[in-house]
Amino acid sequence: MYHDLHFAFNFPLFVGSPAVDDADLRKNDVVRIYDIFLGYTDCLCATDKILRQILIQPEFQKEMGTAEFYYHLGKYAAEWEEKTGNKDVSVLAAAYRCGVPVHTSSPGDSTIGMNIAGLEIKGLKLRINPSIDVNETTSYVLYAKRSGGESGVLLIGGGSPKNFMLQTEPQIQEILMLRDVGQDYFIQITDARPDTGGLSGATPHEAVSWGKVDPTRLPDAIVCYLDVTVALPLLTHYALARHKPRPLRRLYDRRPELLERLKKEFFRHTRI
Amino acid sequence: MYHDLHFAFNFPLFVGSPAVDDADLRKNDVVRIYDIFLGYTDCLCATDKILRQILIQPEFQKEMGTAEFYYHLGKYAAEWEEKTGNKDVSVLAAAYRCGVPVHTSSPGDSTIGMNIAGLEIKGLKLRINPSIDVNETTSYVLYAKRSGGESGVLLIGGGSPKNFMLQTEPQIQEILMLRDVGQDYFIQITDARPDTGGLSGATPHEAVSWGKVDPTRLPDAIVCYLDVTVALPLLTHYALARHKPRPLRRLYDRRPELLERLKKEFFRHTRI
Amino acid sequence: MYHDLHFAFNFPLFVGSPAVDDADLRKNDVVRIYDIFLGYTDCLCATDKILRQILIQPEFQKEMGTAEFYYHLGKYAAEWEEKTGNKDVSVLAAAYRCGVPVHTSSPGDSTIGMNIAGLEIKGLKLRINPSIDVNETTSYVLYAKRSGGESGVLLIGGGSPKNFMLQTEPQIQEILMLRDVGQDYFIQITDARPDTGGLSGATPHEAVSWGKVDPTRLPDAIVCYLDVTVALPLLTHYALARHKPRPLRRLYDRRPELLERLKKEFFRHTRI
Amino acid sequence: MYHDLHFAFNFPLFVGSPAVDDADLRKNDVVRIYDIFLGYTDCLCATDKILRQILIQPEFQKEMGTAEFYYHLGKYAAEWEEKTGNKDVSVLAAAYRCGVPVHTSSPGDSTIGMNIAGLEIKGLKLRINPSIDVNETTSYVLYAKRSGGESGVLLIGGGSPKNFMLQTEPQIQEILMLRDVGQDYFIQITDARPDTGGLSGATPHEAVSWGKVDPTRLPDAIVCYLDVTVALPLLTHYALARHKPRPLRRLYDRRPELLERLKKEFFRHTRI
Repeated sequence: MYHDLHFAFNFPLFVGSPAVDDADLRKNDVVRIYDIFLGYTDCLCATDKILRQILIQPEFQKEMGTAEFYYHLGKYAAEWEEKTGNKDVSVLAAAYRCGVPVHTSSPGDSTIGMNIAGLEIKGLKLRINPSIDVNETTSYVLYAKRSGGESGVLLIGGGSPKNFMLQTEPQIQEILMLRDVGQDYFIQITDARPDTGGLSGATPHEAVSWGKVDPTRLPDAIVCYLDVTVALPLLTHYALARHKPRPLRRLYDRRPELLERLKKEFFRHTRI
Repeated sequence: MYHDLHFAFNFPLFVGSPAVDDADLRKNDVVRIYDIFLGYTDCLCATDKILRQILIQPEFQKEMGTAEFYYHLGKYAAEWEEKTGNKDVSVLAAAYRCGVPVHTSSPGDSTIGMNIAGLEIKGLKLRINPSIDVNETTSYVLYAKRSGGESGVLLIGGGSPKNFMLQTEPQIQEILMLRDVGQDYFIQITDARPDTGGLSGATPHEAVSWGKVDPTRLPDAIVCYLDVTVALPLLTHYALARHKPRPLRRLYDRRPELLERLKKEFFRHTRI
Repeated sequence: MYHDLHFAFNFPLFVGSPAVDDADLRKNDVVRIYDIFLGYTDCLCATDKILRQILIQPEFQKEMGTAEFYYHLGKYAAEWEEKTGNKDVSVLAAAYRCGVPVHTSSPGDSTIGMNIAGLEIKGLKLRINPSIDVNETTSYVLYAKRSGGESGVLLIGGGSPKNFMLQTEPQIQEILMLRDVGQDYFIQITDARPDTGGLSGATPHEAVSWGKVDPTRLPDAIVCYLDVTVALPLLTHYALARHKPRPLRRLYDRRPELLERLKKEFFRHTRI
Repeated sequence: MYHDLHFAFNFPLFVGSPAVDDADLRKNDVVRIYDIFLGYTDCLCATDKILRQILIQPEFQKEMGTAEFYYHLGKYAAEWEEKTGNKDVSVLAAAYRCGVPVHTSSPGDSTIGMNIAGLEIKGLKLRINPSIDVNETTSYVLYAKRSGGESGVLLIGGGSPKNFMLQTEPQIQEILMLRDVGQDYFIQITDARPDTGGLSGATPHEAVSWGKVDPTRLPDAIVCYLDVTVALPLLTHYALARHKPRPLRRLYDRRPELLERLKKEFFRHTRI
């Protein structure tokens, strides 16, 4: 999400190479992400400067989850896109415009989290509360199930974001103790294998034992061992070629309602 | 950290196999982590029940970072170890006894985060603030550098925890704008390669361009492509064989002092 | 090449799954290649039976390289395709029809090599001579260079076949001591990384140090870390979409001439 | 086997780095194998020169399998070790002294195969016949089984050598049609996963369906996803620590006898 801001703010990133002398890059004020080059001063620090101006605006001065945080940030990203005439380059701006909630499981890890922490020393009132993310993401899945629909996960990569998405079902069943049977669809694109025992490589089969995936839907569950830069364009092209655009769900706007539904069902079964 | 509690609370985990029918496991109340089996009711839910009793204790009813959170939790883990006579099985208990701070970059991702979120619906006052973790971890590195010592990172695996540990140097240089030159030592044990462009596979060379690693120390930086269950016993055995035990640093106890030093240096350069 | 014969002979292969009980498969006369099932008796042994009838035909009773061997075998594969009406299913048949030479670096490794070895016990006169393959493949590259053209390698996977294709340049320069500068193009699709030190992961950069790849063409050399079942359809579709079919080179037919040219240039520089 | 000769002939290899400019290496007469440097003229071409002197000796001027070939070559390697006082550095020399047969599945692929092919142009009489390797390796396994013992495979890496070792059981059962039940032990150290469908990653489970591994021994079969430079010293140290040296079997010397046994059993069941 941080590096998405370079696009929104119209700062340049360059095609580079991993086979370079990184001490040289450092001396020349260039930062590398594998084969992408960006300026330390011109891009990183310039992005930070604008970001800090945004973070001290009034709408950020309170406790919130990351969905609300990224929505506010996405509004600025969308404005910057308009201002610079550089449209449709920012994921945060697109998510803002479409009402798609964006969550992160590790809010302190990234230059956004670093800037928030830096400003907190100077008195920033913003507090990211991870529990809000846990309960909101769970409420989306519960609603999909309770409203007669189906739920699915499309996992790009692995690590903490993967489990964060999948733990919504155990949150429903194991923690809130509500009746459910797991996700209906599971598609993962990864290069991680299960044998290391890590989260990134855990299979939909393993997820079934946790109640994360409906065992009856296992034959449709897919792990695709593929570079995501190849898989995502293929999937996207396929989706656009096969389906007409559908009306937006604007799930972001419905967060208060869906969380309320979750709490209501929870309290029906639980005493305070 | 969550699964560490099974050991502390003396709940059994079993050696299993990844080549099983997971729908069968689910039916039989068994949960699988690759080749480890644990009981859904007997282990998972039983752990949750004790955990929730702990989380509602008075010391948890406030805002804190994860180091403080795990310290309080570690105290209970240590007590359970004593009570069950099952000593030296819990990492959290050991960290508590030794004053080693434990941080996580994704506090909402895990069954601990899920239980906190569930209890928050019922009024729990605990708030995990990720910014506290960002600033505390940064203060450790800054202190190591300012007190004439050296700093290093030992990275087991990758993902968000890896960057969380490495971003301490950019937090010092890029965000707090204090003078520094990067980590002195970098050892990583991983199976992730750099070519996917992900965090887990990013090399110490790449980290140099970000100021995360001191370029003059690059020849000593190591990426070891190895299963950690092989690497860690070898490293541990080597360390124990070559060095006598050293007095504990008890870094946990010094957190307030180290954070104060960071703030003091920050404010020397910055106006509020 | 052996499993290609099942298609030519019109024996069925089935879509299976890797998550099965292989002892059960064995009991039920089914053989597995990852997620492909084939009958032990109906497919494997039936293929062997026809193959042995072919191998005892007169044209096989002599010393030859694998290009000639597969050409003769391809003629039978093409006849079987015609006979069963099951056209364009066999790679060997297609190579035969187009005059594309097919070489293998490990002629004894595969059920074809096993059947040859079995028949040798009974007096088969066929002898595969690997040196013929080494010199023929080298002659193709030398001819491409000497006739004003360019040469390139498209490597699918790694292992011994990869080096066998790349060693043609050292054969020219280091062994035959003829002047040359390495391949002009290098495209590899693999999942092997260089850090293990194995052949499969060796990069075009490493190949440059051996004279296998022209150093001035290195910027165009590509290693693509991708599953070949995704990469090959994309490459094939791209090639068919961008270029009209070209007249066949029928390199197979020109083998004697190209080997003669190699020997002539060699003897110009070398005394017997 | 080729690079083993540098050690036998006492030519130097150097610890280098994969992060170098390979065009520079090429200009400076240095050849790279991942992080090993060797001189093009001083090591490669110097090794070739001695190798060619050996290959024209009388004992090589006939048809043979690779076991016999490497035995003859190992004799020279052992003599060079003596001569240069540089003992116990060559694998070929050790195998020669201990009577351990060495086979390769791809005799034309390597600088040894290249030198043989180059000399063949000048009239060398040596012919490597891969069928001899297929039948000799099969005879070892059959003898182990028929003499009341057990057989096992220790697979370091994958590719063609892996299958060449494993195909001995199908050679017994499927091709020679003799009764058998597969290998008793299967240990593999690899970094290749099964999901790509390649040979290197094929599991012992898959091998069971082919009759390559005895299904009743599957629980003992091991695939260890580990860098072999870590695994092999651990295994070797373990073996040396747990077992006293055993008398050598000198399997090389028994090849004619074992092949005769295989043929005898074959002809008992088969008409010519």
